[in-house]
Amino acid sequence: MKHALIDPDRLFPADPTTRSIARTLYKQVAGLPIISPHGHTQAGWFARNEPFPDPATLFVQPDHYVFRMLYSQGLSLDELGIGQPKIAEPRKVWRIFASHYYLFRGTPTRMWLDFAFSTLFGMEKRLSAETADEYFDAISAKLKTPEYLPRALYDRFNIGALATTDSPLDSLADHQAVRDSGWKAKIVPTFRPDPVVDADYAGFTDNIAKLGEQTGEDTASWTGYLAALRKARQRFIAMGCTATDHGHPTAQTADLSKNEASALFAKIVSGTSNAAEQELFRAQMLTEMAAMSLEDGLTMQIHPGALRNHNRRVYKKYGRDVGADIPSPTNFVHAMRPLLDRFGNEAKLTIILFTLDETVYSRELAPLAGHYPSLRLGPSWWFHDSPEGMMRFREQVTETAGFYNTVGFNDDTRAFLSIPARHDVARRVDCAFLARLVAEHRLDESEAVEVARELTNGLVKKAYKL
Amino acid sequence: MKHALIDPDRLFPADPTTRSIARTLYKQVAGLPIISPHGHTQAGWFARNEPFPDPATLFVQPDHYVFRMLYSQGLSLDELGIGQPKIAEPRKVWRIFASHYYLFRGTPTRMWLDFAFSTLFGMEKRLSAETADEYFDAISAKLKTPEYLPRALYDRFNIGALATTDSPLDSLADHQAVRDSGWKAKIVPTFRPDPVVDADYAGFTDNIAKLGEQTGEDTASWTGYLAALRKARQRFIAMGCTATDHGHPTAQTADLSKNEASALFAKIVSGTSNAAEQELFRAQMLTEMAAMSLEDGLTMQIHPGALRNHNRRVYKKYGRDVGADIPSPTNFVHAMRPLLDRFGNEAKLTIILFTLDETVYSRELAPLAGHYPSLRLGPSWWFHDSPEGMMRFREQVTETAGFYNTVGFNDDTRAFLSIPARHDVARRVDCAFLARLVAEHRLDESEAVEVARELTNGLVKKAYKL
Amino acid sequence: MKHALIDPDRLFPADPTTRSIARTLYKQVAGLPIISPHGHTQAGWFARNEPFPDPATLFVQPDHYVFRMLYSQGLSLDELGIGQPKIAEPRKVWRIFASHYYLFRGTPTRMWLDFAFSTLFGMEKRLSAETADEYFDAISAKLKTPEYLPRALYDRFNIGALATTDSPLDSLADHQAVRDSGWKAKIVPTFRPDPVVDADYAGFTDNIAKLGEQTGEDTASWTGYLAALRKARQRFIAMGCTATDHGHPTAQTADLSKNEASALFAKIVSGTSNAAEQELFRAQMLTEMAAMSLEDGLTMQIHPGALRNHNRRVYKKYGRDVGADIPSPTNFVHAMRPLLDRFGNEAKLTIILFTLDETVYSRELAPLAGHYPSLRLGPSWWFHDSPEGMMRFREQVTETAGFYNTVGFNDDTRAFLSIPARHDVARRVDCAFLARLVAEHRLDESEAVEVARELTNGLVKKAYKL
Repeated sequence: MKHALIDPDRLFPADPTTRSIARTLYKQVAGLPIISPHGHTQAGWFARNEPFPDPATLFVQPDHYVFRMLYSQGLSLDELGIGQPKIAEPRKVWRIFASHYYLFRGTPTRMWLDFAFSTLFGMEKRLSAETADEYFDAISAKLKTPEYLPRALYDRFNIGALATTDSPLDSLADHQAVRDSGWKAKIVPTFRPDPVVDADYAGFTDNIAKLGEQTGEDTASWTGYLAALRKARQRFIAMGCTATDHGHPTAQTADLSKNEASALFAKIVSGTSNAAEQELFRAQMLTEMAAMSLEDGLTMQIHPGALRNHNRRVYKKYGRDVGADIPSPTNFVHAMRPLLDRFGNEAKLTIILFTLDETVYSRELAPLAGHYPSLRLGPSWWFHDSPEGMMRFREQVTETAGFYNTVGFNDDTRAFLSIPARHDVARRVDCAFLARLVAEHRLDESEAVEVARELTNGLVKKAYKL
Repeated sequence: MKHALIDPDRLFPADPTTRSIARTLYKQVAGLPIISPHGHTQAGWFARNEPFPDPATLFVQPDHYVFRMLYSQGLSLDELGIGQPKIAEPRKVWRIFASHYYLFRGTPTRMWLDFAFSTLFGMEKRLSAETADEYFDAISAKLKTPEYLPRALYDRFNIGALATTDSPLDSLADHQAVRDSGWKAKIVPTFRPDPVVDADYAGFTDNIAKLGEQTGEDTASWTGYLAALRKARQRFIAMGCTATDHGHPTAQTADLSKNEASALFAKIVSGTSNAAEQELFRAQMLTEMAAMSLEDGLTMQIHPGALRNHNRRVYKKYGRDVGADIPSPTNFVHAMRPLLDRFGNEAKLTIILFTLDETVYSRELAPLAGHYPSLRLGPSWWFHDSPEGMMRFREQVTETAGFYNTVGFNDDTRAFLSIPARHDVARRVDCAFLARLVAEHRLDESEAVEVARELTNGLVKKAYKL
Repeated sequence: MKHALIDPDRLFPADPTTRSIARTLYKQVAGLPIISPHGHTQAGWFARNEPFPDPATLFVQPDHYVFRMLYSQGLSLDELGIGQPKIAEPRKVWRIFASHYYLFRGTPTRMWLDFAFSTLFGMEKRLSAETADEYFDAISAKLKTPEYLPRALYDRFNIGALATTDSPLDSLADHQAVRDSGWKAKIVPTFRPDPVVDADYAGFTDNIAKLGEQTGEDTASWTGYLAALRKARQRFIAMGCTATDHGHPTAQTADLSKNEASALFAKIVSGTSNAAEQELFRAQMLTEMAAMSLEDGLTMQIHPGALRNHNRRVYKKYGRDVGADIPSPTNFVHAMRPLLDRFGNEAKLTIILFTLDETVYSRELAPLAGHYPSLRLGPSWWFHDSPEGMMRFREQVTETAGFYNTVGFNDDTRAFLSIPARHDVARRVDCAFLARLVAEHRLDESEAVEVARELTNGLVKKAYKL
């Protein structure tokens, strides 16, 4: 099918030999099911299966990639309808977005959106002030049809597995509802314990208490708290969960004695801990989580390095996740050592490391993953989840860690409609990288085909046990 | 016009498709006027409009890019005539330079010089020991003709605006003289307050006193000092100034209370401050300057990260700016926070950030500029003001910050004759980058034309209000 | 000669114009003798000239690049026969390796091995579980023939000079035996004093005592210790040594007064020093070594930044050099200053800097080497000794430091049979980089030929005085 806004050769190198190889490789993986082991879609969408609302609510307001760029150029978050109450009229928001769509030139957001506009909604002219209403009307109309309901799109996207990200306190009722509905789809939760291990998290003390209630354990004591976490993990596992996720400010780990850990926990739950103690507690909890993963088999994801809510005024007015998270320098080689001293050599444990600091790709992550049996490298992440970012990841990691210590692609998205676009970009960039290796006689084409399939499907299934 | 030393396709990718697109884009911007918003040329050249002296004095002795490379290979600064008194005979210096010209292979200096030799002086053979005298004679002869006087070259270079960099204590008499001469050229000063805000700057205490005399304010008091700076800025603005520039060792900012700042200032002017207090004072002054910029509209440039005068012996003997400034790791994400907490959300304020530490492009600068309305990204700078450096800047910044949070090119040069060469390199690299996006179907060619024009002229005029 | 496993155009860019230039350049350097100024081959191999044992002992067990990848994917070091006693049967080890050879796709190890398999042993099918025995038998048979004895291979490899790396305590008897044998080969030792300057080195105190015995100096005193080092250097120089090598955890240098240094040394040899004192002593010793180099002319190599034995369990069981060394962030700009303050301006001193932290290429190393007459840049090293790593080195270093502040290639290998493959990769990548400069009209082809020859042979001979 021909699409006006996107070219079938997009993201392939211009050199004809390399492009031709990239095309051949891409053909082998283009039709493979999407395995999405890490993201922020909502199980509730599929449980309820209600129509998505208008284009502004769908494409602009939930996507921090979109509104942070608009904000950086002087538009106010209020006029974009960000925050509560959402008073902005959707069509007006859409027109503002459309008339500033040129700002996204050269960004992955532009590629993701054009893909959706083109393949899902059949748009043929670039979004702009002139085409704003045409887009709004066409998309609005289609969203009301059965073919655009969440479950229909899930099937249309050829998704083989989809993991959400959930608090240990989540009832998982939406996941249960999807299961009960009889609809055949592999949608599983991910255990993200930040709200109950990070004392700096809003509502931490209440969360600990609630965890106790939910599990019937005494979470005021260190042993009761650990037992509660074990039970919560089992509850997630029963719902198909195969992985945990840890979004700490740093990659620091610790390996305290039981007495030290118990005393630290007492300080933490007393509400009198300082920043250093909270950091040490998060560090210790990564090691505790690794211990539990060794028991129950959950794959562990560590996503460190985001300085959350850098913009205090925006955070105060609009809350979390409004685009003001900024990466910061991240050390793994010293920080991960306490955990690795205990569990690094466990081949049955899988710990996937992510970074927002690209300097560690070749210096720390590839050497660590190229040695420790427990370690794997997550794909380029967040700001680096882009054609150039993905290419830098492969170029800087492969020579030391190889392909087989990586785990395929994460879309990590809150924007359900961007999932096929994001996976398509990842597949194309991987094929472009492999095509260069083939064109430069560093890999046979038949090997590249095998690797392309592994990067698309094989490695992710293995690492995440999906 | 054909030039023997430079090829019309230089810096365009070799792949024919991409090269052809790059050519098309370049044609659209090659003839645009040069906007040079940041550099170290001297207003006095244009005020006096006297001939430039011989080739050695013009090309070798003022250009730290040139003599640092020669020095690194064992030539002495004395034999190059660097420092006082300049006893070296120009022709001898030129011969040394010519016979070591091969050292510059692969460097931007070589490209800049060949451009000038070829387009300005019509040289057809590469500079070498053999051609040294031929060059020296040809260039010397031309420099004496009216066509090579500063104003004639300014016009020939098609410069639309040129900013110098000036101390707050500068009388700006040369700028006044240019204005008074009736010659139509847009040459404006830039307000660089380092000599009066950096207590580590040579002559700081005297500078403060002189600032007081010039402005009629009591610069012994914190409020008088701030008032004096305000007046000095107004004096610059009257002469066309649109921007300030801040060359601090780090990007640290601070936001002290009025009492704290006042006490710190007292310590600083007393001459008893330690290094930490001086750093805190510079940090505070960045925030004060931002406050004044919000009042008077001057765009703010922050150029941190140079460890000045790394080579103590060379500094002791030859003074500042003799090639021994070395970049050092630079943090923005924590350092800029105090200033951003106060002014980061001001869309009317423009703060342009530069770095000598390329690791911050994708990790810190692009995410910050892709969020805060007040922030823009300066081009790749100094050591990175080169084809590979410029390409890394675009590749690492664009996907997160887009093109529209950048501000075009700065030549930042003390070498007037290199200005067209430097801008030409920047235009070519930008076109090469855009051509790849087009060839890989990430941008339409018509969009790339628009962006190329913005990168060349539009964004710089807007950011610097020129 | 045609080789099934390796293509004559490998590592050349796919664009036909650039590839054609790369081929032309490569032809000029492909046949030049190998100068190997830094590595870990054993003089004893050439002294004794005995056959290399079986393929597993030759290719798998001594090569940490090989077994760290296998270990990272869950294979045990015991089944690979790593460590003592080597109980694993070589053919079994080889089969394991062969069946996991696909793990090395995209790595330089794969390129090096295929080169040896193909050019030395005439293998025509890729190594795999299916071809494992065929390889084992063919290689085993050839290793027993005279053409595969160490000296025959040295000659066949066209090695012009080969430096080993040796403790100051080494008798150099093997080097003497090579000389005494009458065989014409330039095999020289390198003076690596880590065992007697690093108090954290196993056996440090005994080493100091042994140094005293060997030299007849009182190494319990600071002056005696320095005198002993001078004598040991002279002993190495008598055996052809032209360089020292320093593998410190950091690049820290110091310049203590004689009294301070003497007191620090007393603390160090007393065995009561703490980590900070040991670091300061290593730092001081770099400066002392530079002072001695200025006297005796030995070129100095500084290889900082490896965190040795990161995996404590593996270290405890298997000892040093078992693949668990991990790079860590490395600072040069502040760390090298004490040494540079004293000796940086000495054009007769050559200090070659290496890094495992690529972020310093453009930020610190190129600016430092592009200024200080004593400094040169070593090639990309260890984890970065790879096609992408070498290309990043040239791209990030050349524009500031030029080509002539670099020193050619180091193979740094323990795997003798990989030497031709490694040098071939380096020559090809350099030619590919130069070809791009030529294709983009940044360098004339005739200049590129000159530079290619310098990068292959000229600069290394000059920097290492070989």
